[in-house]
Amino acid sequence: MTSSDAPAPLDWTDVDKRAVDTIRALAMDAVEKSGNGHPGTAMSLAPAAYLLFQRLMRYDPADPDWVARDRFVLSAGHTSLTLYIQLFFAGLLDLEDLKHFRKWGSRTPGHPEHGHTAGVETTTGPLGQGLGNAVGMAMAARRERGLLDPDAPAGTSPFDHRIFTIVSDGDIEEGISHEVSSLAGHQKLGNLIALYDENKISIEDDTTIALSENVAERYEAYGWHVQTVEWKRTDEYVEDVQALYGAYEKAIAETDRPSLIVLRTIIAWPAPHAQNTGKAHGAALGGDEVAATKRILGFDPDKTFVVEDEVLDHVRKLRERGGQAHRDWTTTFSAWRTKNPERAQLLDRMRERRLPEGWTDRIPTFEAGKAVATRKASGAVISALAPVLPELWGGSADLAESNNSTPDGEPSFIPPEYATKEFAGDWYGRVLHFGIREHGMGAILNGIALHGGTRPYGATFLVFSDYMRPSVRLAALMQLPVIYVWTHDSIGLGEDGPTHQPIEHLAALRAIPGLDVVRPGDANETAAAWQFALSRPESPKGFALSRQNLPTFDRSEGSGFAPASEVGRGGYVLIDAPGDAVPDVILIATGSEVQMAVAARELLAEEGVAARVVSMPCVEWFDAQDQSYRDTVLPPTVRARVCVEAGIAQPWYRFAGDAGRIVSIEHFGASADYQTLFEEFGFTAGTVAQAARESLAAVRG
Amino acid sequence: MTSSDAPAPLDWTDVDKRAVDTIRALAMDAVEKSGNGHPGTAMSLAPAAYLLFQRLMRYDPADPDWVARDRFVLSAGHTSLTLYIQLFFAGLLDLEDLKHFRKWGSRTPGHPEHGHTAGVETTTGPLGQGLGNAVGMAMAARRERGLLDPDAPAGTSPFDHRIFTIVSDGDIEEGISHEVSSLAGHQKLGNLIALYDENKISIEDDTTIALSENVAERYEAYGWHVQTVEWKRTDEYVEDVQALYGAYEKAIAETDRPSLIVLRTIIAWPAPHAQNTGKAHGAALGGDEVAATKRILGFDPDKTFVVEDEVLDHVRKLRERGGQAHRDWTTTFSAWRTKNPERAQLLDRMRERRLPEGWTDRIPTFEAGKAVATRKASGAVISALAPVLPELWGGSADLAESNNSTPDGEPSFIPPEYATKEFAGDWYGRVLHFGIREHGMGAILNGIALHGGTRPYGATFLVFSDYMRPSVRLAALMQLPVIYVWTHDSIGLGEDGPTHQPIEHLAALRAIPGLDVVRPGDANETAAAWQFALSRPESPKGFALSRQNLPTFDRSEGSGFAPASEVGRGGYVLIDAPGDAVPDVILIATGSEVQMAVAARELLAEEGVAARVVSMPCVEWFDAQDQSYRDTVLPPTVRARVCVEAGIAQPWYRFAGDAGRIVSIEHFGASADYQTLFEEFGFTAGTVAQAARESLAAVRG
Repeated sequence: MTSSDAPAPLDWTDVDKRAVDTIRALAMDAVEKSGNGHPGTAMSLAPAAYLLFQRLMRYDPADPDWVARDRFVLSAGHTSLTLYIQLFFAGLLDLEDLKHFRKWGSRTPGHPEHGHTAGVETTTGPLGQGLGNAVGMAMAARRERGLLDPDAPAGTSPFDHRIFTIVSDGDIEEGISHEVSSLAGHQKLGNLIALYDENKISIEDDTTIALSENVAERYEAYGWHVQTVEWKRTDEYVEDVQALYGAYEKAIAETDRPSLIVLRTIIAWPAPHAQNTGKAHGAALGGDEVAATKRILGFDPDKTFVVEDEVLDHVRKLRERGGQAHRDWTTTFSAWRTKNPERAQLLDRMRERRLPEGWTDRIPTFEAGKAVATRKASGAVISALAPVLPELWGGSADLAESNNSTPDGEPSFIPPEYATKEFAGDWYGRVLHFGIREHGMGAILNGIALHGGTRPYGATFLVFSDYMRPSVRLAALMQLPVIYVWTHDSIGLGEDGPTHQPIEHLAALRAIPGLDVVRPGDANETAAAWQFALSRPESPKGFALSRQNLPTFDRSEGSGFAPASEVGRGGYVLIDAPGDAVPDVILIATGSEVQMAVAARELLAEEGVAARVVSMPCVEWFDAQDQSYRDTVLPPTVRARVCVEAGIAQPWYRFAGDAGRIVSIEHFGASADYQTLFEEFGFTAGTVAQAARESLAAVRG
Repeated sequence: MTSSDAPAPLDWTDVDKRAVDTIRALAMDAVEKSGNGHPGTAMSLAPAAYLLFQRLMRYDPADPDWVARDRFVLSAGHTSLTLYIQLFFAGLLDLEDLKHFRKWGSRTPGHPEHGHTAGVETTTGPLGQGLGNAVGMAMAARRERGLLDPDAPAGTSPFDHRIFTIVSDGDIEEGISHEVSSLAGHQKLGNLIALYDENKISIEDDTTIALSENVAERYEAYGWHVQTVEWKRTDEYVEDVQALYGAYEKAIAETDRPSLIVLRTIIAWPAPHAQNTGKAHGAALGGDEVAATKRILGFDPDKTFVVEDEVLDHVRKLRERGGQAHRDWTTTFSAWRTKNPERAQLLDRMRERRLPEGWTDRIPTFEAGKAVATRKASGAVISALAPVLPELWGGSADLAESNNSTPDGEPSFIPPEYATKEFAGDWYGRVLHFGIREHGMGAILNGIALHGGTRPYGATFLVFSDYMRPSVRLAALMQLPVIYVWTHDSIGLGEDGPTHQPIEHLAALRAIPGLDVVRPGDANETAAAWQFALSRPESPKGFALSRQNLPTFDRSEGSGFAPASEVGRGGYVLIDAPGDAVPDVILIATGSEVQMAVAARELLAEEGVAARVVSMPCVEWFDAQDQSYRDTVLPPTVRARVCVEAGIAQPWYRFAGDAGRIVSIEHFGASADYQTLFEEFGFTAGTVAQAARESLAAVRG
């Protein structure tokens, strides 16, 4: 079987129906035992989730990482039981796990957590993110196909597979759903099938209070294939599984557009009182209501967590079917391997996130003395690496030229009919055009990384990291190998003014646990930082890069300047006090302010003050060093210190210490040329030197 | 004239045409002189902006704050010249201002800045925000009408006015446009008219590379009234001003739905080479192209900043027309004042942002010893103040019950047909239902505050402040009187797990210049913080409130605890060392961790260690105190310190100092009951006491 075969006609027996009702009973029991959670949607979505896992998806529970599996993304993460119960049916979770729902240390936390529970493809809960991940996965699947098996006719490649997602009213309301759905339609992602569970209930109860758009028409405007399945009818509720299955069949057959199936459900059906209420959305139903519902479903109201043997045997057959599908697939896959030895090597390498031999040879070095913006250095690295790292791809949220994020000569990933005179298009291309959709970009990058194999990056101005912040947080939570190229990283942006000048962003991004924020001090630090970042795929990295030119330090032997390869240490002695004397004062700087520290060192030397300059491109990498290294760079005995960064001081107090001074900006910027701004806002060698004098005075008391 | 009268038929003379071409020449000259900027859209939008300011809007340049003026929001803030040149025509800016475009200290910064340039209704640039502001203004206009003149027939009230906005392709792409447009359709904002400048060019050039949705159909799906005006036709460009004017006439006549006019333009028309290019979007055209364009327009290519007398006389007549309209309006307004003396008092009070006599009498106090979540205390304050502060209104992004953001017994602001069994609806109601649209909520709150008069608040979980962060930043930049009610402010949220538990958010929000972040330590601090926040409308405030119950401290005389009114100091001695001894150590805490500091003080007392507890609900308010007060609370001589907050340590290093310790959480949370989480993650009286011992040891060296 290949993924593109039409599914077999639906054979729906009493055992299937009993299994679906078992889902409802388990969902009620799990929430009741936990005391909190979201039972209602898990009840009403029971048949849909069951259809997906038991009938529609290519899925082998024995290998949840099967490269060719269909992906399932539960964008409506609050109904985590919808997924957990299917994973239990698949044998990936035990009944005990369901009994420990939302408890400390359990495999069934309140929202699905990728990396924590096998079979969970992504962490969801913050609404809209999962839909964005699904769009990213669908794009990654196409890119993967293009890298590994571009010539196989549609539906014949072992890499063909689909992305299924379930979205809720809340996902539909969030702005990110607009960004990623518009882009999915534009990209003609025929491998993406979304089920919209339109139950019209959210926490404030009836969504009529806030939602009256026509969602089906909206998605048609995006170029999606849209179907509606009405289970809730004027005077009755008909859980027409055949109709839903038929809609899925059509969605699967539709390969030129993403598909949306609008499924009109009643939340918590058939609970007699709780159905169709906000309470059923987010709270336990209570013992009486659970009992009443169990009676309706033909379950013993006095028993909990009941899974009849016949049901369990039936649903666990998924393992046989999935195993058989996997074995059948292996034949096709092996034939592909034999025929494509080089591509097979690429696949193996990508799956292990291993970079090719000699890849670092390509990384450019920049001539000392030249003035180069770090964004430009970054662009040069991307272009240099593109030929040897086909897994590296990405693009910008409509700022490609400003972000220097486009590798030279590479085609865009775009249906060819949307190519423009600026950008050549290729269905399997490499350069991503997100449009002015930073948040969608963030969620899509996560989806690409989650899909596996390729390594994505995305670019915008640093100030607009705010627009994508919820997705960046999830990348950090999941520790995904995503790279952000954030340029125009300070008031150095200049004339566009305070709306475009990051002030608080370096602090705010460093605040996110698990995100490495990298602000290189010159072109060669930028190149070395790219190398270090790519070689460590275990977490997301965000580059903060200058718009304006920065001097490229002469790091040759005898120059006194350390090699840029020290960047991986996070912080290092860029140039020590003159004559390698014990420093009187340490000047710590990042990015475009490193040059000011270097110049201040000269000013201070004229006064007989011995100043060491520490470049600190990445606080997180520095923190990862052992104490002895850190004490070598920042000896605790040297208490006179100055930190300088064109952002707020908040992250620097711990390095400055009681006697230190921080040269920072604690207010918004202004519209003017950047030289004026640095001068007016006190970022000069002179202010750094003066701060050093003050710190020295404080130490001397 | 009232705002609802149909505009007079368009009388379009050669002088009008010349004035429009003058706009194009000025736009080119200003960008050329600046060396950078966005000329193209200012050129192609020249007739549209001219129509709005010179013909369609109720606008009196002599009084840019006229309460009944139509508002103009340039959501496409990059084309700031579109606005500046109209303000020049209106006499609010001089030609000199245009010559200093994007220069230090000028009134014409790169993007329009509210509060900096008279006549700029809002700060724009970050895309989508202006559209959200416009929706908020349209809602505020309705609420104002309801408060001041609810019974006047449509179109007869002196408070009837309209909100006009211009949006670009980029606004349309941003997710926030979806949130606010869906809500605007739902709210049937007939007083909102948006012009979508579909020029199909953005920074990556032809938007075809990233945008193919059918925008008109999308907006119809939102319930908007949509018209399309095609100036760009297959083989020619016809700047049909009459057609645009006719569309505006229809949009004005449409009072039941917001209106979108899709205007298909060619950017930078009629520049011979630059038109329809990405370069014309964001860069100076260059001398040759400017000269060529001026020749086409019939201007002397060797002259710059030319405004012929005839043109200037003609456009400055706007002042006479606006003044006459203002005087005519005053008749109606005075009649209203006479007839509505109490409402007139309310209007005066609202315009001055003055609160009524005795309003603080309503603020509840909470009984000592009771366990109360600060979110619940906040809800009690909102309910208590609602009757005396009609200007205070707001709501939640679908978390009303969790956020405790709904005042008792108040109707929802909603077309009555959308009322639900949970929420009574009133066209002029008070409770806002944003749906799951946090970002839209943020921009709408800004729009409400900008409109003037009323005082808005918006609520969601603290973790989802990330979703609205770009709007929060703009509230801080503009110093708007917006209040955020962010509840579930730590791992104390419990079972929903790491996706819902803020860790870095307090630090990240404190990082925003000009935003006051307030995390009260008990119910009475919450009430006092609301009082303080409302009495200071000069900046936005964000409350971080607990989900879980907190003890209410006994602050009675002799209790040793300071009164909650000290909250306004930002940080204060909650309870001093036993016997008012000189403290050995200071324990600084916020929110739900204050109780741990208080308990640790007891533990330490048993060991003979004298500990002072400082509650620090708002770092920004503490920083605003004079040095002597701050030194009283935190004597520099007492170097043993512990800071405790269930978030990252980053903001606390500066208070802890070299010898201090910080009890913090530097990683993401987990799904479990909150008691387990506080215990497992080290937030207990015991860990605070132990940190105090360590700090004391460090001081003793």
